[in-house]
Formats: sequence, structure tokens, C-alpha cells
Amino acid sequence: MQFNPEALQKLIRIVGEQFVFTDDETRNHYGHDETEDYVFPPSVVVKPANAFEISEILKLANDYKIPTTPIGARTGLSGGALSIYKGIGLSMERLNKIIEIDENNLQITTEPAVITQVLREAVAEKGLFYPVDPSSQGSCWIGGNVAENSGGARAVKYGVTKDYVLNLEVVLPNGEIIWTGANTLKNSTGYNLTQLMVGSEGTLGIITKIVLKLLPQNSHSVLMLVPFYKASQACEAVSAIFRDGIVPSALEFMERDAIDWTLKYHDDISVKVKDEVQAHLLIEVDGNYPDILFSEAEKIMTVLEQFEIDEVLFADTEDEKNALWKMRRSVAEAVKSNSIYKEEDTVVPRYELPKLLEGIKSIGNKYGFKSVCYGHAGDGNLHVNIIKSDMSDDNWLTQVPLGIREIFELTVGLKGTLSGEHGIGFVQKNYMDIAFTKTHLELMESIKRVFDPNNILNPGKIFPDEL
Amino acid sequence: MQFNPEALQKLIRIVGEQFVFTDDETRNHYGHDETEDYVFPPSVVVKPANAFEISEILKLANDYKIPTTPIGARTGLSGGALSIYKGIGLSMERLNKIIEIDENNLQITTEPAVITQVLREAVAEKGLFYPVDPSSQGSCWIGGNVAENSGGARAVKYGVTKDYVLNLEVVLPNGEIIWTGANTLKNSTGYNLTQLMVGSEGTLGIITKIVLKLLPQNSHSVLMLVPFYKASQACEAVSAIFRDGIVPSALEFMERDAIDWTLKYHDDISVKVKDEVQAHLLIEVDGNYPDILFSEAEKIMTVLEQFEIDEVLFADTEDEKNALWKMRRSVAEAVKSNSIYKEEDTVVPRYELPKLLEGIKSIGNKYGFKSVCYGHAGDGNLHVNIIKSDMSDDNWLTQVPLGIREIFELTVGLKGTLSGEHGIGFVQKNYMDIAFTKTHLELMESIKRVFDPNNILNPGKIFPDEL
Repeated sequence: MQFNPEALQKLIRIVGEQFVFTDDETRNHYGHDETEDYVFPPSVVVKPANAFEISEILKLANDYKIPTTPIGARTGLSGGALSIYKGIGLSMERLNKIIEIDENNLQITTEPAVITQVLREAVAEKGLFYPVDPSSQGSCWIGGNVAENSGGARAVKYGVTKDYVLNLEVVLPNGEIIWTGANTLKNSTGYNLTQLMVGSEGTLGIITKIVLKLLPQNSHSVLMLVPFYKASQACEAVSAIFRDGIVPSALEFMERDAIDWTLKYHDDISVKVKDEVQAHLLIEVDGNYPDILFSEAEKIMTVLEQFEIDEVLFADTEDEKNALWKMRRSVAEAVKSNSIYKEEDTVVPRYELPKLLEGIKSIGNKYGFKSVCYGHAGDGNLHVNIIKSDMSDDNWLTQVPLGIREIFELTVGLKGTLSGEHGIGFVQKNYMDIAFTKTHLELMESIKRVFDPNNILNPGKIFPDEL
Repeated sequence: MQFNPEALQKLIRIVGEQFVFTDDETRNHYGHDETEDYVFPPSVVVKPANAFEISEILKLANDYKIPTTPIGARTGLSGGALSIYKGIGLSMERLNKIIEIDENNLQITTEPAVITQVLREAVAEKGLFYPVDPSSQGSCWIGGNVAENSGGARAVKYGVTKDYVLNLEVVLPNGEIIWTGANTLKNSTGYNLTQLMVGSEGTLGIITKIVLKLLPQNSHSVLMLVPFYKASQACEAVSAIFRDGIVPSALEFMERDAIDWTLKYHDDISVKVKDEVQAHLLIEVDGNYPDILFSEAEKIMTVLEQFEIDEVLFADTEDEKNALWKMRRSVAEAVKSNSIYKEEDTVVPRYELPKLLEGIKSIGNKYGFKSVCYGHAGDGNLHVNIIKSDMSDDNWLTQVPLGIREIFELTVGLKGTLSGEHGIGFVQKNYMDIAFTKTHLELMESIKRVFDPNNILNPGKIFPDEL
């Protein structure tokens, strides 16, 4: 173990011996997230209790030039929590308290290591609504959601994490602790460091407190599963629904394989799918007035009539709704259990979805890979799971990256970009030149240097290896 | 005229002689906005046609170290468009075209010098909705709205400018032209330079194209004017309405004087106000279903019953609605026509409004000034107009700034901040130490230096004179 013994002693002095780990088991445990099969263990795992301890750790990391990687729930899909250059793995797990639910101002103040679903349920108990629900909401943490600017199924109506973050307590890489903004709905006071911090993937500072805006809870929803005979038409239907003036609270796309594999993976969910069906849309509308929702559902049905669809399944009970959502949320796991894969998080203006899907398939044909596509179609956010299946290791390593590059070139050509909600992290960083000019990347890197001149915080992420 | 003659010749070569002005009349015209009675004329007014010309101008400004101030519609209230250090006044007026309304993706791409109301009407003709409506929407430009992160009456339900900006074409101070993001609803690809640019008040780059998200148009609204016998109860009612689960599309507060002065200023608007009334709330709900709106209005009435209110005025026709909105939108002008004044743009979490209003009045008593308060109460955004009236010039210059400082200290103490939607600009910059630590301000200044190492772009704004 090459970790500087003097620095280790100081770490122990900061957080206490019981919160510093150098054993292989712990290091390996904190060395991976949900990104493919990557494992990059830190040299030492440290579990601070609060912002002050984190401040001391970052000062130490600067003194000794130790790479330091913040580690959340490790549910990330872009490798943001991997300790690429070893060093300190800074687990946030002890900052796990909801500090205050402010019912007067419709706000919550929380520490980062609160499971998103726990936070959503805690505010729901007070009749309040935090709409952002990543598919991993049962295990991911709100801090990671802020770091990656996570989305989820409801983003199409309610927006993504960034749209709810009002204020952040952040430990800067130099150890200073600041609040980035104010607990207000509007703010035109200096540069928006709150929004600069959201989605910065733990490279600009460590988020220790989060103030989120909440909404009043909606009491009703209608959920329907629509089978399409042509996947391309499912994509076309997405923008047709919006053009008709309806804003669904969810509009999810799943290719045939996504559903088949998920139904195989979860044998407790039963949905009958005809052989001819190529894709599904899962469509939800929500609000306080059931009659209005039924009439919106009818309007959606009228829009859908112009496409070739099979019989629509309406989820009548809460159990049926939960089953359909469980199916949708389990697709990633199901695909993962089926084959080695790489996941891309492409996003385009929603009308371009049919072109994106067609392009992905034809690029796959060219490079010899199969893909399973699904995602938040209402946002134009398509998750592309590239399946290794029986592809040779050689082709997997050499051909697939070329194909991914072409997919991203297509995405950017359609006025989209590389990642809608997963972040760039470790696995997409060498595609950043497709989305940004050299000037633009250098500008981002200069901002990084302003915050973190010694590049101690989450190095090896976002920026391409060669700039 | 001390402007470098060589630089002047080069400016003429870039934009053409007919778009370069050095006469006093033009310089004075472009030397003020709506901020009190400040006049800071640039040495030369330049009217470029496009991003390429702006790029050349900024390169020139760097070569000769010439301060350069972007000038929009000059409706700003924080002095952002004032050429404090003379130099080039860069009028954006020729970049005045709507480039595309994309009905398939619910987006608009526009140049900055489009009047906000013109843009709103253009998209409304296609059945689409751009919700952000600053009170000056009939004269302000969308580019200025982005630069200041403007709000307006509908922000309480629909958010502020930042919530609609998807992507920006920006000329950086070094002359490079970049797009900050992508035309997508979600984006987790590198640092969010789009949001860093929004609200940066023309100090980080010149915005030359703007891509905004649009919504489907709402077809109905209910508008009511509620007179309160106690101003403090009007403030209390604001958060009570939200706590009851209603999200109005507007919730505006006006003190008695604000209405009286406005009715005097616009004798075509007639609203009867009893002597005992201290304040009004103007409350709107909107949506597609009139029945729902009426039932929401009834719910609001039930909430209001717990307060001492006079008879509620419902605007039945479009004309009546327009008259009430005209009244609300004219308050600032009316106050301005009545007395020399200073306007503050305080914002707090909305439940703190009663404390803010009470504090402002008691600070006024202490320092001997009267104030007229009104604003977007649903957002906790209170505009404080400090009235000179018969105060001595000496007290106006020495006592009022002390009072303003106390008001801001109160605001920040209530977890609010200095500006909700007007920006810091020239007039609030020396109060920034109240909202931010030295570290924090230095961080912002370092970001400014990354973009603009020679400090040519809109110098003398945002940052306090002494840091």
C-alpha cells in the first residue's frame, strides 16, 4: 500500500480511526459503481461526518497532492465515483440526514446521502412533491442526483434535478465552505454558482447540504401502455402528443427486447405482448382532477389513432401502475443481467427521435453490434444499450468505440448531445470533442482550475485525456 | 473625444461608417437605461450586424484594452447597460430577428434584440406559450432578459428566464464564438455554461442567439384583485395559498400607495379603493379548463376568509383583465413620475415576506425615508421603492445607503438575497459583501478573469469596488 503514511495518520486524526479503511475488501467495495464492470479502488476509504471534516480532508489532499474522489450510492452509469488515480475515496454515507422540510416555503434542506425515494416519500407525507425520480430512485442518493443533474421519467413535465436546486452548501477544493446562492425561487445576484455546481460530477466541490424546491402533491394519475407495430412510429407519436397541446407527466419508450428481457427477468410482472409489436410507449398524465385526466387520456388516444398500434393497456389500480413502473425501471438491470453491455445516454430534440433510432440501428449494422434502446422519449433522451452478446472481444474493444463515436456524431448533428442525465464521468470523456470545440473545452478546464488548481478533486473525469 | 483614432477607423472598417456614432446626442441616448437618473455615455456607439462583427469588435477591444458595454433595450433597473468607463457602447439592436419557431420541438431560436412581448405574441400565434413576462415586456428585449435572468408576474408558476434557456450562441471576450449547450431539454454534458451565462449581466460574453423552450398555450385564466385592510395580512396570505396546494399563475402584492399613484398616473383605469385598505393582492390562476379554474378560485377565496379583506374584484372580461394588468405593470413608472427614488429588488423565501415588509418600514423610520413596496409576492420578490420626496439631498446621499444596507442585511438574514430579477449591475455592486464571503466573490471574479482576462467586457458591474 503506497499511500503516504503521514497523510494517513492525519486522516485518522480528522475523522477517527473507525472511519478510515485501507483493507482490500472495503477498497474494492468502494471501487466500483454501476458502470459496466469497471473497478478502480481508492487507496484509502474515508467516511467523514460533516462539512468541517471534509474541509480538513481537502486541505490535506491539497497539501499532499492526493487525488480525492467523492463516492455516493455508487449507482452511477458514467463512472463518476471511480477512483481512477487511487488516492482518497471520500464516502459521503454519514451525511445522511434530512435537515428540514419547510412546509411554509415548500422547501427541503437535506444532506446528500439520503436515498431519493426516501426523500420523495418524506415530503409526500407532508402533502408535498419532489418530482425528480431517476429509475434508480430506490438506491441512488440525492447528492449524486445533484452531481449528475439526474432526470427520470417525470422530467418531461417537471424538469430535472437542476430545476429544483435552490441552494447548495459546498466544500471547495481548498477547504473553504460556501453556500452557492440563497433559499429563494428567483436569484439574479452574481454568477449562478449553484447551477455551475449541479452536474459538475464532483469535480468542483463537495456538496454537503442541498436546498430543494418542492411542489404541492398531485393526487391522481392515469397510466397507459401502448404497443406499436413499428418502433419508428412510437418515436413519431412522442412529438405528435406534445404538438396536440398535452404535456404528459411521463412518456417512456421501450424497444421490444427491453420489454421481453425485463419480463423474463421479473417473472412476477405479466404483460402480454403480440409477436408483431416492435415497441411500447408508457404514457402517464397526472393532476388533481380525475375527469380532466380521463379527457386528456382520450385526447392522447385520438392522437395515437393515426399510428399502427395494438390494444392499449390502461393500468386501473395502484398495483397495476406499480407493476408497469417496476417493469420500466428494471430494464437497465434486465439488460445487464443478459449480456455485457455499454450504455449511452443520447439526447436530442424530441422530434428527431425517429432519425436517432434509425441511425443507431444502421450504425450497429455497420459495426456489427446489436442495441436495445429505451428511455425518456418525451425529453428526447434515449438510452442505447450496446450488447456484446457473441461479438468477439477484439471487435468489442476496437469496433464498438468507433460505432459509439458515430452515434454521438449523429446525436450532435441532430442538435442533441452526449448525455441527458447520466453525466460524462470516466466512460464518455473521450467523446467530448464531438460536442465541444477545443476553445470550449479549455474554457471548462480553466473553470476547473479556478476551483481546483492542484486537480485533486475527482481527476480523470469529464475532460478528454488529450485536450 | 479621447477615443483612439486608429481603433475608431478599425471599428468603421468592421461594421461600416453608418453604424459608428461619436456625436453627443447618440452617445447620450445610449448612455442611460431606466436606472434612476444615471447617464454614462460611451465614447463611441457601434451597431454590429451579427456575431462575426461582434467577434471582430471584441478582438479589437482586447488589442486596445477598450472597455466595451453591451447595450440592449435600456430598460434595465440595475445600470447594467451604462458605459461606466466610457469606451465602446455595443448596441445589439440590429440582431433583432426571430430565426425559427420550431413547432415540432416546442422551441424558438431568436436573436437578442427582439421585444419580449413580440416574441410572446409570435409564439402564441402558433398556439405556443413563452411564459416569462417582465413588467417591461412591451419594451425590453429577450437578450436583456437572459443577461439579467428576468422574472415577471408568471414566474411563480412557470419559473424565470433561466428555466427556458436551452442553448446560447455567445461571442466570448476573446472573439471566439461558441454554442454553450445543446437544443435539448436535458443535458448532463460538461459544465453548464448556459446557466453560467444566464444572469451574468453581459460580463462573460455577448449573447447573439438564444434557444428557448416553449409550452403549449393555456386557453383560460381567472384574475382577481383582493383588498386587504392590513398589508401584513396580504403578505401572510401569500404562503397560505400555496400551503393549501394551489399554484397560482400570478400572485402580485401592491401597497396602498402603489395603487393610488398608479391610478393617478393612468386616469383611464378605474378601481375603487376604500380608505381603510392598506394593500392588494392580484391573483391569477390559469389552465385549459374553466370549471377547474373557478373551483381553484373558490379554494383561494376560502383561504382568504381567515384574513380581513374587503370585497374581491373578479375581472370578467379580457378588457377588465388587461386593465388590472396594466395597472400592475405601470406601478414602477407611476412611482418614478412621482418622486426621485431608488429601487431595490429584494427576494426572500415567501413565508418571510411579512417580516421583510415590517423590517423595511422600521428601517425607513430609522433613517427617515418612505418606501412604496410591491412585487411578485408569490416568489417572495418584493420591489422596494425608496422615495426621496422632501428628504434633504444630504440625507438622500448619506443616510439612504445605510438604510439600504440594513434592508439587504435583513433580506440575507431571512435566507434571501439582494436581487430576484433585476441584477446587481452598477447600483447594487457595493452591497455584494452582504450576500457573499470574500472567498466566494473572489471565486466569481476568477471566473470572470477566465472569460475576460483584460476585463474589457462590461467593467464596473457586479463586483464591489473594493474586494
